[in-house]
Amino acid sequence: MADTLSALRSLMASHSPPLDALVVPSEDYHQSEYVSARDKRREFVSGFTGSAGLALITKKEALLWTDGRYFLQATQELSDQWKLMRIGEDPAVDIWMADNLPKDASIGIDPWSISIDTAQRWERAFAVKQQKLVQTTKNLVDEVWINRPPAEINAVIVHPLEFAGRSVADKLKFLREKLRLEKARGIIFTVLDEVAWLYNIRGSDVAYCPVVHAFAIVTLNSAFFYVDKRKVSAEVKTHLEGNGIEIREYTAVSSDVVLLAVDELDAVSTVRGTSIELTEEESKTLSETGVRVNGSSQEEDGSNDLIWADPGSCCYVLYSKLNPHKVHLQQSPVALAKALKNPVELEGLRKAHIRDGAAVVQYLVWLDEKMKDNYGASGYFMEGYEVNKEKHLKSLKLTEVTASDKLEGFRASKENFRGLSFPTISSVGPNAAIIHYGPQAETCAELDPDKIYLFDSGAQYLDGTTDITRTVHFGKPSTHEKACYTAVLKGHIALGNAKFPNGTNGHALDILARVPLWKDGLDYRHGTGHGIGSYLNVHEGPHLISFRPQARNVPLQASMTVTDEPGYYEDGKFGIRLENVLIVKEADTKFNFGDKGYLSFEHITWAPFQKKLIDPSVLSPDEIDWLNSYHSKCRDMLAPYLNDAENEWLKKATEPISV
Amino acid sequence: MADTLSALRSLMASHSPPLDALVVPSEDYHQSEYVSARDKRREFVSGFTGSAGLALITKKEALLWTDGRYFLQATQELSDQWKLMRIGEDPAVDIWMADNLPKDASIGIDPWSISIDTAQRWERAFAVKQQKLVQTTKNLVDEVWINRPPAEINAVIVHPLEFAGRSVADKLKFLREKLRLEKARGIIFTVLDEVAWLYNIRGSDVAYCPVVHAFAIVTLNSAFFYVDKRKVSAEVKTHLEGNGIEIREYTAVSSDVVLLAVDELDAVSTVRGTSIELTEEESKTLSETGVRVNGSSQEEDGSNDLIWADPGSCCYVLYSKLNPHKVHLQQSPVALAKALKNPVELEGLRKAHIRDGAAVVQYLVWLDEKMKDNYGASGYFMEGYEVNKEKHLKSLKLTEVTASDKLEGFRASKENFRGLSFPTISSVGPNAAIIHYGPQAETCAELDPDKIYLFDSGAQYLDGTTDITRTVHFGKPSTHEKACYTAVLKGHIALGNAKFPNGTNGHALDILARVPLWKDGLDYRHGTGHGIGSYLNVHEGPHLISFRPQARNVPLQASMTVTDEPGYYEDGKFGIRLENVLIVKEADTKFNFGDKGYLSFEHITWAPFQKKLIDPSVLSPDEIDWLNSYHSKCRDMLAPYLNDAENEWLKKATEPISV
Repeated sequence: MADTLSALRSLMASHSPPLDALVVPSEDYHQSEYVSARDKRREFVSGFTGSAGLALITKKEALLWTDGRYFLQATQELSDQWKLMRIGEDPAVDIWMADNLPKDASIGIDPWSISIDTAQRWERAFAVKQQKLVQTTKNLVDEVWINRPPAEINAVIVHPLEFAGRSVADKLKFLREKLRLEKARGIIFTVLDEVAWLYNIRGSDVAYCPVVHAFAIVTLNSAFFYVDKRKVSAEVKTHLEGNGIEIREYTAVSSDVVLLAVDELDAVSTVRGTSIELTEEESKTLSETGVRVNGSSQEEDGSNDLIWADPGSCCYVLYSKLNPHKVHLQQSPVALAKALKNPVELEGLRKAHIRDGAAVVQYLVWLDEKMKDNYGASGYFMEGYEVNKEKHLKSLKLTEVTASDKLEGFRASKENFRGLSFPTISSVGPNAAIIHYGPQAETCAELDPDKIYLFDSGAQYLDGTTDITRTVHFGKPSTHEKACYTAVLKGHIALGNAKFPNGTNGHALDILARVPLWKDGLDYRHGTGHGIGSYLNVHEGPHLISFRPQARNVPLQASMTVTDEPGYYEDGKFGIRLENVLIVKEADTKFNFGDKGYLSFEHITWAPFQKKLIDPSVLSPDEIDWLNSYHSKCRDMLAPYLNDAENEWLKKATEPISV
Repeated sequence: MADTLSALRSLMASHSPPLDALVVPSEDYHQSEYVSARDKRREFVSGFTGSAGLALITKKEALLWTDGRYFLQATQELSDQWKLMRIGEDPAVDIWMADNLPKDASIGIDPWSISIDTAQRWERAFAVKQQKLVQTTKNLVDEVWINRPPAEINAVIVHPLEFAGRSVADKLKFLREKLRLEKARGIIFTVLDEVAWLYNIRGSDVAYCPVVHAFAIVTLNSAFFYVDKRKVSAEVKTHLEGNGIEIREYTAVSSDVVLLAVDELDAVSTVRGTSIELTEEESKTLSETGVRVNGSSQEEDGSNDLIWADPGSCCYVLYSKLNPHKVHLQQSPVALAKALKNPVELEGLRKAHIRDGAAVVQYLVWLDEKMKDNYGASGYFMEGYEVNKEKHLKSLKLTEVTASDKLEGFRASKENFRGLSFPTISSVGPNAAIIHYGPQAETCAELDPDKIYLFDSGAQYLDGTTDITRTVHFGKPSTHEKACYTAVLKGHIALGNAKFPNGTNGHALDILARVPLWKDGLDYRHGTGHGIGSYLNVHEGPHLISFRPQARNVPLQASMTVTDEPGYYEDGKFGIRLENVLIVKEADTKFNFGDKGYLSFEHITWAPFQKKLIDPSVLSPDEIDWLNSYHSKCRDMLAPYLNDAENEWLKKATEPISV
C-alpha cells in the first residue's frame, strides 16, 4: 500500500496541472454502492473494505472518510499511513479540502466517478481559496493497479414480465410523458438498477446486484442501451430492439451525449429494419408510445429542448458535455417509479420472503442442534445453565463463515434462488458490534455458546430481493444483553406498527425506532431503513428511514418497500440488530383527518424473535400482542416449507408470551 | 372595510411608482407576534383578528394568508371581498404574487414591517418576471386609518436581578464576546423581547407582552436604547446609564444605523458624565466588559468591521442602510441566550407555575360547583346521568367570557401577578375547535354541561410566564370524545416523557405527540410546542417542537422551556388540547451511548387531567404510572395554595387510576 501511495503521488506530480490532492471515491462510474472487483479502487488504495468511504491522497497525507457503520472496521483495516475521518464528527471532505489544501490547489478526480451534485458542491467550497477541481483524463488508480481484475463478460438476461409486472413499452410510455411534462427531449441514465428496471433486463456484473454495466439514453422518440455488446444474446437483442431500444457500445455513451446536446443523436434505421416480426398489438403500442416510426420524429414543435440528468447520480463528465442552460437537473423519474412496486412485484416479494424465512428457520434449527451437540450449549430455548466448555473436535468446529455457508445452502435450495443479495454478515460476540462485518474464512471467529450471534443476510430470487437480520444466543445471555435486545425490539415494533399520514417522510419516522433505546441512553450509528429492490439492489432509494437529511426528500408512499432495522452495538462486546422488510400500505384507520389518507406497514419477513432474549416485563400489552400475532403468522406462513421437526421447533419458538 | 380597500387602492394608484399590489403583514416594526392596538394594520384592513396572517391587496383582489390554527376563524371573520389562502395547502404568498401579478409589477410594502429574509426571498421569486418589491416611504394603511388608536406612553420598568438572574453587565459582556468572535463591531436589535432581556427592562406597550417599543444597537464599546423618552423614569435612566447604555429617541435608530454603517456612531460623553456614582465593583465590571472609558475605543485593530443583523427579524429598511458586504447575517445571539434560562429564572418559572396551577384548580372547583348548581350538570367527577336541561335564571348564566374572567380573578390574587400572557381561549363545544378562539363578551357562547369546555390561558408573573391548557366535560362525554381525549393525552405523555440525545431538534420530536393520534387517523394542524419567556413573551424561540422546517434549526438544550400541547379538533363539534410547560434537563439515563449526553423534560405545570375523559383501557402501564405520579405531585405542589375544600376536590381529581 505504501508503494501504491508513492506511485500515485508520482502520477499526481507529473499530471498536468500537477495535483495537490487526488480523490478516490468508493463508487464506480454508475455511483453504485456495491461495485465489481475491478472497480474497488478505493479499497485497493486504502485497504479499507467497507461498502462506503472516500479516500483522499495529498502530497503528505492519506485520509479516509467513512460513516458510523464502519468506524470500528476502518480502525482495524487502515494502516498507519491512513487517517480515519469520521463522517458526522470530523469536517466533511469538501470542507476539509477547502480548509487544509493550499490556495490555488488542484484537486484531481476521475470525472466518471463523481456526481454532478457532489462536484458542484465541492467547487463552491473550493472557490473561497481559488482551488480547482481538476478532471483527470485517465483514472490514476487504474494506472498504478498492476493486478487489477479484468472486465468480465457476463450475459445480460431478460427479466420476464411474470416477475417484472410492467412491460418495457409501458415504462417507456410513462417515462416519455414525464419528459414532455418537464419540457425535456432526452434523459441520461447512469444508475445500473435504473437501466435494468427500465429495460426489464438483469445481469451479473456486480456481485450481489443483478445488474449490467450499462448506460441508457431515452429521447422522445428513441432509446439507447450502452453495453459491452459481447454480453448481449440474440434473445436479449430481440427483446430490446422489439421495444425500439438500440444497442450501442458501452463507451459510445460519451460521444452520444455530445450528439444529444446538439440534438443530433439519432437511432439508426436498422433498429426498425431488424427481422423482428411485430404483432399488430406491438406495432400499435410502439406507435402509441412515441417510439420512432419510419425514422421521422413525432415531436417537431421544438418546445422540448432540455436534457434531463439526475444531479445525484449522473457522472460529472457527461454533464460537462451538455449546455448547462439546457439541462434539467432533477431526480430521475425512474427512481420513484422503481420504488413504487407494482402488484406483481409486491406479490413476488411476499412469496420470496416466505421462502427466505423458511431458509432462516431451517438455519436456526440446524444451528440450535449444532450448538448443543458440538458446543454443549443449552440451545435456542433454554438458558438454565452455564455452558460446559469442553474441547470439541476440529471437525465439529463452526465458524462465522462455515455457519453462514450453511445458511446460503438453505436459501439455494429454494425456488427462484439466484444468489445472495449482499455479503452475509455472520458475526459472533464482538464482531457483531462491527455493523457491516464481513467474515473471512481464514480469520473469522468460531461460534460461541456464551456469546451473541448476529446474522444479517438476504438473497436474490427471481421474484424478489430479501434482507433479514436476527440476533440469537444459544447459552445464557446477560441481563444487560436482554435489556438491550428488548429495547431494540421495542424500537422495531414502534416503527413497524406506526400509522402516519401521506406526506410523512422517513426522517420523521426514524425517531420512533430510537426512542425506546434513548430511554436508556442507548442509540445506533446507522439509519433505520432502506428500500429494497424487486430482484434488484438490496439498497434502493429514493426513500430512506434515517436521521440523515436525505431522508426528508421523499415521503413514504403506498407500495414502497422499506426495512425496519434498529440495533445496538457495544464495541468489543456484542451487537444486536433486528430487521424485517415492510411494505408501505394504506392504513385502515377509523378516521381520516385532513383527508390525507393514512399509511401503515405490512411485515413480509417471517422468522421468530428469540424469546429468551426478550424481557417481557418491559413490553407493553400492545407490544406483546403484536409479537404474539407476528409469531403466529410466522408459523402459518412457513409451515408448508418446513419438515415436521422444523415445524415443531418453530411452534415452540413462536409460542405466545404472556403479559 | 369596502371603503378601506377602495381608499387603499386609490393610494396604490397614486403612489410613485403606482402599485399593483400592497402587502400588509400582521407584524409590527419589530416582527412581533402580538402587536399593540395601533399596529393591528392587517386586522384593520381585513377584519381578521387572528394573531398570524398576511393581507395582500391587488387592484382587483384581496387575499389573506393564515395557518391551520386559524382556517375556521378566518372563514368566519373575512367578508366576501376577501379570499382565504391556506398556508400549507395554497401557494405561498411570494409564489402566488410571482405567478399571478403581471410582469414588471410593483409590489408595495412598508419596509419597517418586513424582515431581511422575507424581503430577499420575495425578491428572488419576483425576479423571474422582473417584478419589483417597492419600499413605501409611508405606511399606506396608516394614511387611510381614520380612528387609529394613539400611541400610549407606558412607563419602562427595571426588571430586577432577583428575577432576571443575570446582570446587564454580564449580558453585554457575553454579547461583546460574540461580536468579537464573529468579527462584528456592532449589532442591531429590533425584536422587543430581545431588547427587554438584554437591558433587563420591561414595559407594557403591547397587551400581554411586558415589552417596550424600542430598538437597541450595541457596539464593542457603546450601547444604545431607542425609545420614546417620555417612557423613561429617572430610575430607569440610572439603571441604563449605569450600564453604559445611552438613551435615544425611538425614531433616531434610522439615522444611527446610517452612522453605524460608516463607523461614526458614537456615544455622547455625557453618558459617562452623568451623576451616577459607580461603586468600585461596577467601575471594574464596566472596564472589563469593554465599555468605553474616557471616550476612547478599546478596539482599535480594525479587524471587526461587520454589522450583525438577524435576517429573520431585522427590518428590511434598516438593512437597506448598511453595506451588504459588511453585514453579518446570522440569528441574534440573544435569541438562544434568552431561551437558555438561568437558574434564577428556572426557579422563578417553577414557582410561578405552582401558583398558576393553584389558580387553575380553584377555577375548576368553582366551575364544577357552578355547572352543577346553575345547569344541573353531573359535574367534574360523575358522568352517571344525562343533564336535565332546565331553564336557568339569567343571573346564573355563565359564558365563555364571564367564566374566564373568574379564572383571571384567581390568577390576579396570586403573588407577583402582572396580567395575562395572552388572550384567554375559553371555548365551549364547537368553539373549542377554533384553535385560537377569542370569545367576545357580546357574542360568546354559554357554558353547556353537554359540551366539552377547553381553556388555554396563562399569566405574566414577575418571576415567570405561564401557559396551560385543559379540556373538561361537566356532563356525559361521548365515547368518541373520550377516545380522542385519551389519544391526545397519550401524545402529551409520549413527548413529555421522552429522552433523547443532545443535538435532537423539535422537528424530530414532534412526531412523538402525533403517533397515538395517527393510529386512529387523527391529527392536528398546529405545532406541538413553543418556548416560553421568563416574564416575557409567551411564545419564544428560537426552538420549536413542530413539523415546520424551522423546528430543525435549533436543537433542544438543557435549561430551555417548551410547551407540550397536542390536540384534536372536529370542526363544528368540539376541540381538545392538553398543554403543560416543560423544562429541558439532563436525563438520568443508565448509559450514555456516543458520549452525547441525553436530555429529558421536567413538567412544571400542575393541574389534573380529567379522569372522566380518559379511557384507561388504551393506556399502557407506563402511561398509567406516569399519570398517577404526575397527579400525586399535583396534590403535593398545590396543597399550600388551596383551602380545605379545594384540597379535598383535588385529592379526588388526582386519585390514582388502576390498570
